[in-house]
Amino acid sequence: MSRFFSPGHAALRPYTPGEQPKDQQYVKLNTNESPFPPAPGVVEAAAREAARLQLYSDPESAAVTKAVADFYGVAPAQVLMTNGSDEILNFAFQAFGDARTGFVFPDITYGFYPVFAALNHVPYREVPLRDDFSIDARAYCGAGANIVIANPNAPTGLPLPVAEIERIVRANPDHVVVIDEAYIDFGGESCIPLIARYDNLLVTRTFSKSRSLAGGRLGFGVACESLIRDLNTIKYSTNPYNVNRMTAAAGAAAIAEDAYYREKLRVIAENRAFTTAELRRRGFTVLDSAANFVFARANFTSGAALYQGLKARGVLIRHWDAPRIAAWCRITIGAREQMETLLAAVDDMMKEASR
Amino acid sequence: MSRFFSPGHAALRPYTPGEQPKDQQYVKLNTNESPFPPAPGVVEAAAREAARLQLYSDPESAAVTKAVADFYGVAPAQVLMTNGSDEILNFAFQAFGDARTGFVFPDITYGFYPVFAALNHVPYREVPLRDDFSIDARAYCGAGANIVIANPNAPTGLPLPVAEIERIVRANPDHVVVIDEAYIDFGGESCIPLIARYDNLLVTRTFSKSRSLAGGRLGFGVACESLIRDLNTIKYSTNPYNVNRMTAAAGAAAIAEDAYYREKLRVIAENRAFTTAELRRRGFTVLDSAANFVFARANFTSGAALYQGLKARGVLIRHWDAPRIAAWCRITIGAREQMETLLAAVDDMMKEASR
Repeated sequence: MSRFFSPGHAALRPYTPGEQPKDQQYVKLNTNESPFPPAPGVVEAAAREAARLQLYSDPESAAVTKAVADFYGVAPAQVLMTNGSDEILNFAFQAFGDARTGFVFPDITYGFYPVFAALNHVPYREVPLRDDFSIDARAYCGAGANIVIANPNAPTGLPLPVAEIERIVRANPDHVVVIDEAYIDFGGESCIPLIARYDNLLVTRTFSKSRSLAGGRLGFGVACESLIRDLNTIKYSTNPYNVNRMTAAAGAAAIAEDAYYREKLRVIAENRAFTTAELRRRGFTVLDSAANFVFARANFTSGAALYQGLKARGVLIRHWDAPRIAAWCRITIGAREQMETLLAAVDDMMKEASR
Repeated sequence: MSRFFSPGHAALRPYTPGEQPKDQQYVKLNTNESPFPPAPGVVEAAAREAARLQLYSDPESAAVTKAVADFYGVAPAQVLMTNGSDEILNFAFQAFGDARTGFVFPDITYGFYPVFAALNHVPYREVPLRDDFSIDARAYCGAGANIVIANPNAPTGLPLPVAEIERIVRANPDHVVVIDEAYIDFGGESCIPLIARYDNLLVTRTFSKSRSLAGGRLGFGVACESLIRDLNTIKYSTNPYNVNRMTAAAGAAAIAEDAYYREKLRVIAENRAFTTAELRRRGFTVLDSAANFVFARANFTSGAALYQGLKARGVLIRHWDAPRIAAWCRITIGAREQMETLLAAVDDMMKEASR
């Protein structure tokens, strides 16, 4: 910390992204990327824009906003496109949180929520998941604060039914409820239709996972017009041209190429069922995931040792040395051959452990 | 404003970007874009990355950071790449400003500085430019606050000599001085070499103007390692993957293709001299610009009428209905034929005015 850094940020502990090692080729099952490239039309659309980069992108991102709005059956004024969904989440903490109005979220969830809170000097409270890692909707009713819930939750992969979400939204009419649907396409039920009935619901989405655009950086929020207007006030006070031309074009094309992505989602679900069954056959406890990852615990070794042992064998997964989940690891669902490499590495570790 | 918007933002007035009209084709001389496309190698590098977007970008943007560091003769740890230079400027307000430590900047300058201050609840003070629109360095000595100065300044185009900047940096050892060099490549002298001697200097840059990448969104900051570390703390608490893969690749290629851009800078300087002379011949007062725009005042009509009259003739320029500069307009320097179209439209207005 330099002597110029604002003392208000002295306690700020930034988010730690998953490793992106440059030293060797790993089977990367640690950042929930898609194993499939973007659809051909997406690659072409992005590449075409590369020749026009001397001109600013449209600050309204009107074309991709309209494509998204049409796809989800909402109005363009109910959509805000951002530089990844981290940006819309940060805007939400900034717009709706302050020293008097905090946020609540599960004790085990996306690790960025407490960071956004700290960055924006917004107090927060963590609500414990049940022992089975499920979310208790009752614990969020009358929270007295804004709420952010990932659905399906990460790193557990467990989904929350829309009826439970509606109950939370209805029970907190004076606070904003943010539902982070980063992984919803892999198996959950979206609550976007609820925005027509509730003025306190913000749904956030990303193109990173189900639309193979992690490296393009595109996310968005869907909410009633007045919440989107507030979020736009923050955006135009931060970075009006937040989405570049190539990514905006890629996003619109990714909506048009929906059939391509639906087929990939089918394959991921198949590989998830395969991986879950195979890990359970090897004595793992594996939660029933609705996402493109599984949360799993080995019975022959610790979470940290599983992570280390797999890394030594060229397979990267994610482990957090954190309360309640230190025994667990999160494993991205990739292509079938990646999952077979993972299982072979697990078998090798188990053989070594039994010697 | 929704009933959920934090009252702390009630007075926030977002930045208004230059018009990006979709209704007709204009000769666009209003947002200081380059009239030249990116170098061929830049287009290819960006397009190549489009096929790999399923993988996250490198959060450290290591390749383009190294390219920039090598080019400017600094260490990679002295550079932070951002999603346009608006992002590094916002990070600076957030990192180094707070309720007790404000910012000072000229009363006539980039209109985003007061917005960044308001967004981050940082007090600010505006220091009047001299009557000739030049910056009085003495007015910034012992400012008792952080400082941000655009060099060359916008919308005046007037440069500040490095010796004057050094005087300001030296006279404010306990505050950060941000020099926004968005337009420096068009004629000013960069103060990047000063960062080796001063731990309170942050220089910000953009690829938008001189490297034809406005639509790609790439900016950066150069400072001593400890300031960059603070700015990284903010970045990793905001948006770790802030620069997408295509833009990072385009940026590295744009550094490699420096000769292409140097030739374009030569043409812009030539067109600037031509435009300045031609406008003066028509009775305009035109400041001596070191940027890719000129700040000019017609003697036959008002600033607002010039803007409107040119717009009606298909030429967009920028006008602010603001104190001290209401009579003036900012005109981007484009290609020779664009400037000839501008001059023909001016001639048409003058003919009409003299009837």
